[in-house]
Amino acid sequence: MIVEMRRGSSEAEVEEVVQRARSLHLDVQMNLGTEKTVVALLGSNTGQVDSDMFAVLPGVESVTRIMRPYKLASREFKPEDSKVQIDGLSIGDSRIVVMAGPCAVESEEQLLEAARAVKDAGASILRGGAFKPRTSPFSFQGLGEKGLELLAQARDEVGLPVITEVLDTQHVELVSRYADILQIGARNMQNFNLLTEAGKTRHPTLLKRGLSATVTEWLAAADYLLAQGNTQISLCERGIRTFEDTARFSLDICAIPVVKKNSHLPLIVDPSHAAGHYSLVPAIAKAAVAAGADGLIIEVHPNPKEALSDGLQALTPSDFARLMKELQPIAASLGRTI
Amino acid sequence: MIVEMRRGSSEAEVEEVVQRARSLHLDVQMNLGTEKTVVALLGSNTGQVDSDMFAVLPGVESVTRIMRPYKLASREFKPEDSKVQIDGLSIGDSRIVVMAGPCAVESEEQLLEAARAVKDAGASILRGGAFKPRTSPFSFQGLGEKGLELLAQARDEVGLPVITEVLDTQHVELVSRYADILQIGARNMQNFNLLTEAGKTRHPTLLKRGLSATVTEWLAAADYLLAQGNTQISLCERGIRTFEDTARFSLDICAIPVVKKNSHLPLIVDPSHAAGHYSLVPAIAKAAVAAGADGLIIEVHPNPKEALSDGLQALTPSDFARLMKELQPIAASLGRTI
Amino acid sequence: MIVEMRRGSSEAEVEEVVQRARSLHLDVQMNLGTEKTVVALLGSNTGQVDSDMFAVLPGVESVTRIMRPYKLASREFKPEDSKVQIDGLSIGDSRIVVMAGPCAVESEEQLLEAARAVKDAGASILRGGAFKPRTSPFSFQGLGEKGLELLAQARDEVGLPVITEVLDTQHVELVSRYADILQIGARNMQNFNLLTEAGKTRHPTLLKRGLSATVTEWLAAADYLLAQGNTQISLCERGIRTFEDTARFSLDICAIPVVKKNSHLPLIVDPSHAAGHYSLVPAIAKAAVAAGADGLIIEVHPNPKEALSDGLQALTPSDFARLMKELQPIAASLGRTI
Amino acid sequence: MIVEMRRGSSEAEVEEVVQRARSLHLDVQMNLGTEKTVVALLGSNTGQVDSDMFAVLPGVESVTRIMRPYKLASREFKPEDSKVQIDGLSIGDSRIVVMAGPCAVESEEQLLEAARAVKDAGASILRGGAFKPRTSPFSFQGLGEKGLELLAQARDEVGLPVITEVLDTQHVELVSRYADILQIGARNMQNFNLLTEAGKTRHPTLLKRGLSATVTEWLAAADYLLAQGNTQISLCERGIRTFEDTARFSLDICAIPVVKKNSHLPLIVDPSHAAGHYSLVPAIAKAAVAAGADGLIIEVHPNPKEALSDGLQALTPSDFARLMKELQPIAASLGRTI
Repeated sequence: MIVEMRRGSSEAEVEEVVQRARSLHLDVQMNLGTEKTVVALLGSNTGQVDSDMFAVLPGVESVTRIMRPYKLASREFKPEDSKVQIDGLSIGDSRIVVMAGPCAVESEEQLLEAARAVKDAGASILRGGAFKPRTSPFSFQGLGEKGLELLAQARDEVGLPVITEVLDTQHVELVSRYADILQIGARNMQNFNLLTEAGKTRHPTLLKRGLSATVTEWLAAADYLLAQGNTQISLCERGIRTFEDTARFSLDICAIPVVKKNSHLPLIVDPSHAAGHYSLVPAIAKAAVAAGADGLIIEVHPNPKEALSDGLQALTPSDFARLMKELQPIAASLGRTI
Repeated sequence: MIVEMRRGSSEAEVEEVVQRARSLHLDVQMNLGTEKTVVALLGSNTGQVDSDMFAVLPGVESVTRIMRPYKLASREFKPEDSKVQIDGLSIGDSRIVVMAGPCAVESEEQLLEAARAVKDAGASILRGGAFKPRTSPFSFQGLGEKGLELLAQARDEVGLPVITEVLDTQHVELVSRYADILQIGARNMQNFNLLTEAGKTRHPTLLKRGLSATVTEWLAAADYLLAQGNTQISLCERGIRTFEDTARFSLDICAIPVVKKNSHLPLIVDPSHAAGHYSLVPAIAKAAVAAGADGLIIEVHPNPKEALSDGLQALTPSDFARLMKELQPIAASLGRTI
Repeated sequence: MIVEMRRGSSEAEVEEVVQRARSLHLDVQMNLGTEKTVVALLGSNTGQVDSDMFAVLPGVESVTRIMRPYKLASREFKPEDSKVQIDGLSIGDSRIVVMAGPCAVESEEQLLEAARAVKDAGASILRGGAFKPRTSPFSFQGLGEKGLELLAQARDEVGLPVITEVLDTQHVELVSRYADILQIGARNMQNFNLLTEAGKTRHPTLLKRGLSATVTEWLAAADYLLAQGNTQISLCERGIRTFEDTARFSLDICAIPVVKKNSHLPLIVDPSHAAGHYSLVPAIAKAAVAAGADGLIIEVHPNPKEALSDGLQALTPSDFARLMKELQPIAASLGRTI
Repeated sequence: MIVEMRRGSSEAEVEEVVQRARSLHLDVQMNLGTEKTVVALLGSNTGQVDSDMFAVLPGVESVTRIMRPYKLASREFKPEDSKVQIDGLSIGDSRIVVMAGPCAVESEEQLLEAARAVKDAGASILRGGAFKPRTSPFSFQGLGEKGLELLAQARDEVGLPVITEVLDTQHVELVSRYADILQIGARNMQNFNLLTEAGKTRHPTLLKRGLSATVTEWLAAADYLLAQGNTQISLCERGIRTFEDTARFSLDICAIPVVKKNSHLPLIVDPSHAAGHYSLVPAIAKAAVAAGADGLIIEVHPNPKEALSDGLQALTPSDFARLMKELQPIAASLGRTI
């Protein structure tokens, strides 16, 4: 249930709403907008609470039931766009943010070479996997903490904040120490304990869409992060699983305007994992920007043929630099920069 | 099997290839490119023919087996982009072609108003359904031949060529008399008799992708048209069926670079049927252009709320005009016009 | 809208309902059940008709709006199970009906050998394709009318009624002359003109589910047949297209109880096309019978390795005979025979 | 790479294979079959190892490369069926094992009532969720450790071993203390850290298929458990996500023979989560048994209407008892009991 306070309602009036909610064993989250305060009443039995119990309180403008399973990620709770702040960077702003780098951190040389190349081409965040979720236990699983150290070193040397995936609740503290942005991967989108732990850190977090998650389930998963008071959340569309197999996944381009309409959270698009092949990445990246994405996350490897994972989908540094140039006029056509 | 002749090979040499193919009961199609001739050998038993029987002939440069089920639609058969010519218009050229109009022809007033509006906004082809494929037999089925007459009238009065759907082999001759472009709808993509009849007309034809057809099956369906000698074929991506239901279908944006890589045929995108809701159409249309589509087909209705079919996905004339303006800089960023 | 008459309502009372419907430009279909008459009111604008206009008429027990797009195929219109009568055989009865034979009719020898084998093993209907829908125009397309003649000959010699596919409205009359049951294939499930023509014949017809059709769309397609007064309709589940590719399609086993709950039409299952591989056919066939299917349609070829189409999914005669034996106790456990 | 030793090969010969593998930095797993020993050589770079290095060793019969990503779960590694032993019960044997109970443990009364009912009806394992993965953070999340205690109490009082889900690596030790079988849920099928921790326990574990996982990915996930030396693994098919929405998921009935052909692991089917509605459960359960499932896991609630989660899909105790009776002749028809 969403309780919208009147413009100019007093703190005491808001507090009365909160008290009544608590007396009914409901949780409360507040959006203190610049113009008005919105209070979300949360709990498994809100359906049985009479909305009039809140509508009659002083200072309350309206009470709305949200039938969809997500509440905190919804535009009803927070009409204005959210922005995620990282070291002066802002995700969700007019500048489209590009995260780039190798699928997996493999070595100091590989990572630094990639980091310098993507920075030169205009990327503003360095990506690289230290813990890798792999289909088979016998595939390369990433360098683990050593990979995190290399990422931190690359950040210091090159000057780009870093994003890397966290796979397990037991690693949340560790990864948070090194990463500027935590990435929750597609396979973990409904790993609810991991979401809760990542939420508790209040660390900027990128939530990838599960490969067969509906938009609704994805936004409900974001609610797990938001429910812990972590407002620094971005979403990432990376392709859904369909019957078509000429690309590895089907990037759900329609999800971009759908998410923008229904949620206030910034939306990043990952053309690399969707495509599965480097030759498709530029077209998908351009489409994503044109459709309104707030950013891109793109795999770039100094030597894709020798990559330890997913080499086929990585761009070379020079292909990436060309793509960045080609994206500029598209961003400009939307009144944005990149 | 694809037989590529040497640059400068003689007509007699080509003829010898053709004769040998016929002697083996194979069909033959030729691509007389500006630089070299390519001969496709076609039949259900080409797999059993020894390629050396052709490789040894004079003037033959190479013989390639195509394992994919489509041959004539492939880049191997015809490396250069195909163009479809309609009354001075050219689909597949640097100008992005926009087809627009109502889902169904409902009345003279409705159609003329739509036609004038879309022409004013920059569309170059008028769309409108006379025969409508509807899920239920008790829904409005279109005006039939009366609808075709209204389309012809609109063409004459407004000066736009028209595209309309043909549903059945028995209507191919009738619809061809009125329409500048025949549309084969998604539900008929594998109506092979209809494809064959449309192919025989040599009329420009737009082949929509079936809602669960793979790109491979779609290009093989195009082969049915091409096999009749009809080279005036365009493809149309209109969304595939997936588990996601916030949009009506999931537009397969990855299919755009995939088709462009594997086929020489022009590719149109239909954002309206994919979206199912007008509010999603502009973002998808922009994405399609950015990804490399050669054209768009968009539903526009003078009064969407009173439309007899699919009103929810139709743009108003003013929304369409705004979209056309917003598409211009994206087209320009790719070195194209719209 | 469904108008249920009272038990014992008079013909005059029913006629008054019909007259009022006609005066409102609605079409009418009647289910003259043994206990009571049900009248379906059909048309694109029934939503705007006030149900009280019928509820007040004498002899009317209830008026129900059906929101789902199918009406005539629904249990609301006809609560009791429908049966299709073919030459003494009855589809939808306690005996489970097995249709078997080759994918395509290839020759007199092949067809007769298959026909004798499947009859000996207990099949009661012979299947075989004369017109074949093939992904590529360069694959074997079936023997056409010659194939129909061979089917008729096999029927005469072996004594099994035959089912074969009709692909196009222009062949409906021809195929009806030879076939005991018309088959509408998955790719034509929404070829609405074909459905209408097949409906007009009043010939027993088997409607296969489209490979990405929802159950709702499938039953609405059945309405096209039923709307022409053809009540001899069976449905056929043959697998839907999903991301999984170890079988060719995913047989939708849940659809069996769903269809049985919502529709009165008999339901056949095709394990061969779903599986795409003979080794999976027996398990799927058993599952289908256990879940409540009224029949099976199975591909059997005397020599699968030399089949001109889909040989990999055909059972040998001896495998088919073994399967028929294994199905008996499962049928018996449900109080049925096979 | 799979190294099959000759019948009667000596321990020393096997040891030599192991030593050579270790010298190449490969991991090793052994299947000590009754007839012969099979050694799996595992690692991310087996593709670069020359198979002749093993083929020439004494006692080696054959060396096979497995191209599929799963090795230990494959029939190549272990041709004979695996069995999971729980307290005298054996999953994968001729007796079909039925696990039943409520979706979530809600209270002592609810659980004991359910436990007694399902035992009386013939179930041999009690299911019940203590930690519940829920789409929204504001839904009931399960009783946690209190739920585990109630499960242990029910086991003691009623005498059925219990299965319950573990959601997070940090709970593996805790849940293992209470549960006879650990359940890895569909949303965690590719939570690889959780798989590894569950593998280390050597506790019987049921691995549910992810809702959009291919059979191949599912078996590769089983490899994570097996790679830790845990051989007490069962698989569970519970429906995949498709476009069809009349059931909650589409039970992949074809996966039953596919898994049985390619893997030695026992296979359980969950008709309740696939169906999403109690009325569909019996038909799906029968189909699963007929297709060759080794067991079923079914939701039963003493009072489905008051269930705190998924009440709509739970059977009442009397419906469950009836289903158990109906399953008996189907099991018998396959030479099995239930």
